Amino acid sequence: MKKELFALKGTICYSKNQREMIFMEDSYVVCENGVCAGVFSQLPEEYKDIPVEDMGNRLIIPGFTDLHLHAPQYAYRGTGMDLELLDWLNTITFPQEARYADLSYAKKAYSIFVDDLKHSFTTRACIFATLHRPATELLMDMLEESGLATMVGKVNMDRNGSPELQEESAKASAADTRQWLEDIKGRYDHTYPILTPRFTPSCTDELMAELGKIQMEYHVPVQSHLSENFGEIAWVKELCPTSRFYGDAYDMFGLFGTKPASNTNAAHTANNSAASTANTDSGISNDSANGINICPTIMAHCVHSTDEEIQMIKDQGVYIAHCPESNTDIASGIAPVRRYLDMGLHVGLGTDVAGGFSLSMFRAIADTIQVSKLRWRLMDQSLAPVTLEEAFYMATIGGGSFFGKVGSFEKGYEFDAMILDDHNIRHPQEISTRDRLERLVYLSDDRNLVGKYVQGRKVI
Amino acid sequence: MKKELFALKGTICYSKNQREMIFMEDSYVVCENGVCAGVFSQLPEEYKDIPVEDMGNRLIIPGFTDLHLHAPQYAYRGTGMDLELLDWLNTITFPQEARYADLSYAKKAYSIFVDDLKHSFTTRACIFATLHRPATELLMDMLEESGLATMVGKVNMDRNGSPELQEESAKASAADTRQWLEDIKGRYDHTYPILTPRFTPSCTDELMAELGKIQMEYHVPVQSHLSENFGEIAWVKELCPTSRFYGDAYDMFGLFGTKPASNTNAAHTANNSAASTANTDSGISNDSANGINICPTIMAHCVHSTDEEIQMIKDQGVYIAHCPESNTDIASGIAPVRRYLDMGLHVGLGTDVAGGFSLSMFRAIADTIQVSKLRWRLMDQSLAPVTLEEAFYMATIGGGSFFGKVGSFEKGYEFDAMILDDHNIRHPQEISTRDRLERLVYLSDDRNLVGKYVQGRKVI
Repeated sequence: MKKELFALKGTICYSKNQREMIFMEDSYVVCENGVCAGVFSQLPEEYKDIPVEDMGNRLIIPGFTDLHLHAPQYAYRGTGMDLELLDWLNTITFPQEARYADLSYAKKAYSIFVDDLKHSFTTRACIFATLHRPATELLMDMLEESGLATMVGKVNMDRNGSPELQEESAKASAADTRQWLEDIKGRYDHTYPILTPRFTPSCTDELMAELGKIQMEYHVPVQSHLSENFGEIAWVKELCPTSRFYGDAYDMFGLFGTKPASNTNAAHTANNSAASTANTDSGISNDSANGINICPTIMAHCVHSTDEEIQMIKDQGVYIAHCPESNTDIASGIAPVRRYLDMGLHVGLGTDVAGGFSLSMFRAIADTIQVSKLRWRLMDQSLAPVTLEEAFYMATIGGGSFFGKVGSFEKGYEFDAMILDDHNIRHPQEISTRDRLERLVYLSDDRNLVGKYVQGRKVI
Repeated sequence: MKKELFALKGTICYSKNQREMIFMEDSYVVCENGVCAGVFSQLPEEYKDIPVEDMGNRLIIPGFTDLHLHAPQYAYRGTGMDLELLDWLNTITFPQEARYADLSYAKKAYSIFVDDLKHSFTTRACIFATLHRPATELLMDMLEESGLATMVGKVNMDRNGSPELQEESAKASAADTRQWLEDIKGRYDHTYPILTPRFTPSCTDELMAELGKIQMEYHVPVQSHLSENFGEIAWVKELCPTSRFYGDAYDMFGLFGTKPASNTNAAHTANNSAASTANTDSGISNDSANGINICPTIMAHCVHSTDEEIQMIKDQGVYIAHCPESNTDIASGIAPVRRYLDMGLHVGLGTDVAGGFSLSMFRAIADTIQVSKLRWRLMDQSLAPVTLEEAFYMATIGGGSFFGKVGSFEKGYEFDAMILDDHNIRHPQEISTRDRLERLVYLSDDRNLVGKYVQGRKVI
């Protein structure tokens, strides 16, 4: 299926860079073996005989990467929206996640989630499952079947859960994680494992140290939560009194990005393989060298990160998953995304279902712009609001680059594309292509998505 | 059509009071001559033979009142979202509104607006048109035809517009307004005029004084904008140096709610008729007495109102149209709605299209809750976030009461009802009726609306 050579014709929109977009009407984007061969206003001679699907004036844009969401929480999205993080976890989230011990419930719930994700604007996603290995593997099976490209994590949590939702011990959690990684070895083409310590309050030092070992051994990337909520941050300080700041509590165990091995406390030798064997296909940056501990890491939120923490995020190439809807719903605050962008950090967008209620990455773009305006107005007028172009970049290349060359139509990028029909967003006047895109950001729903390709595969 | 007697059966949800809701499954709401006869778990003997439409487990809720939106701006909703109020007006809004001088353009644009409004969650609305009389009357014709109940204002603006969008003089503006009110006299059953000075920067003192006279003469209510943006507020102070605060610049001309005639500067005698002849059917409060100047007034925004202004809003019964989406998009700020609710002010919700981009009043409810959380987190932890119940109340009775007994299913309320089918918001587990409603707040779109009644009329 990936061996195809074809072109889509339509109104093509993608990021030129972080601040500018390219809009090309009646143009072609060519896919060759799952990879973009470029965008052309006229098909070059070498492609003149390839199949062309003409989308008319529909928009063709790169797929979006949802850098942070919780599959089991999709079941109760949009409910229980009156709580802050820690209460929300204990009252709603933990009891609901405990249900995934029951595989038949998991099947029912994940079927809905995967079907809706497939029909959403997301082509790639980094997903938290639950601590349950069988349900996590089931979710991965379903995601593989969907055609999307995803990273999925069996969650680790050996403390501060509930009687129904907590692993027996650090050792048991680590053993189960190894078992999971063994179970799925070679099983998927485009579904990848990602280590997922829930967050510091859920994982003992012993478990974190085990995960550090597993990371080095299996070369899997890592995802977790960071500096989301004041109560959470204070709690981490209590639980890890020797950490200098929240992020340091991950870094102490080698779970916070890429750095010289000599600096890590995790007692492992350096590793010069790809970031992850399981992720060889995903294109995760592979510029390791002896003496470097490569741990591609996503940290969700970073709403209240200190200067020191931000510096370490930068120095160690940690990805920030900005989740504006969730940060609003759980009343966490508004992350200083303008600052992160200006510092050149890796910032992608996450829906954080079910802290966020919507799967729509267009909505995540809109929310990013909107909360940045409120932050500017209410908190700090030195940080200008985020523009449409910048938020679009975050949703495409910003998060996509965690998967490799993903999120653009430039030559060499993996071919993730969405076809958008916006005729139902009616207007009496002529409007520009940029206006059409801006309207989709604010006004689209799943009806506007009429085609989706991931790595060259036609998914819908 | 209004003489019908019938019942709808389903899962009925409405506000018990500002803080609590009533949820009744398998129950009946009875409509008698356009008015609610009550909600019953079993149909009383007297109604046992009336036609019953069984909606199964669909939700039946009162209609929503959109207390503030601009019909001509619907054409460019969701575009040009990078500007603050005054720049946005000059760069985008004024040139776009100028197009409504062309009646054929107006017809094209308003057809889309009215059709979308009809199929939205709105049953009642207070709408700004443009300064053009013919286009305003066309809009009113179309709205009447739609079956919705609306108040519509020909906009007044005789200064600080653009060459294409400004009336010739205060006198010309007043004359045109009188002509408009004469033109439509007796023309509509459920479409009402409302005086609409755009905002103080657009109206000279002379025009405001004329409008004060017209208000007294025609007994029409008034809508305008108040304390939305810092630049705007400073400008009003310059333009009206004798006003004590922004609201006072309306009050000086008798355009700011209800108060003893002796306190008004507008040189008119008191009036003891209903608030408006044109609005007799609308049920606007009619408790006038000699010596009282009744001017039912809606002021949109009130984001930055001073204590003095808030006190006058309270004392004179002015309605606040809270427009959270717009206040976010144009980076105005977040209004202290908790304070307004606690003070017992009249607060309804507005979409403020196209400062807001969405016509959905469910979204307005969600936005109200969301921004109240950010305000609590970022600005003032003494003002608790708004709850689902409170925001629902604002969208129904809060704004509806500007039209009279509107926004509830209690006996005596006008029969405005919406039938909601939420089966596409899938879930694997049992959920409560309140959860179903909360999900519609966050996740609904027009597909979820399968029936709508206004004043007993079946609209869709």
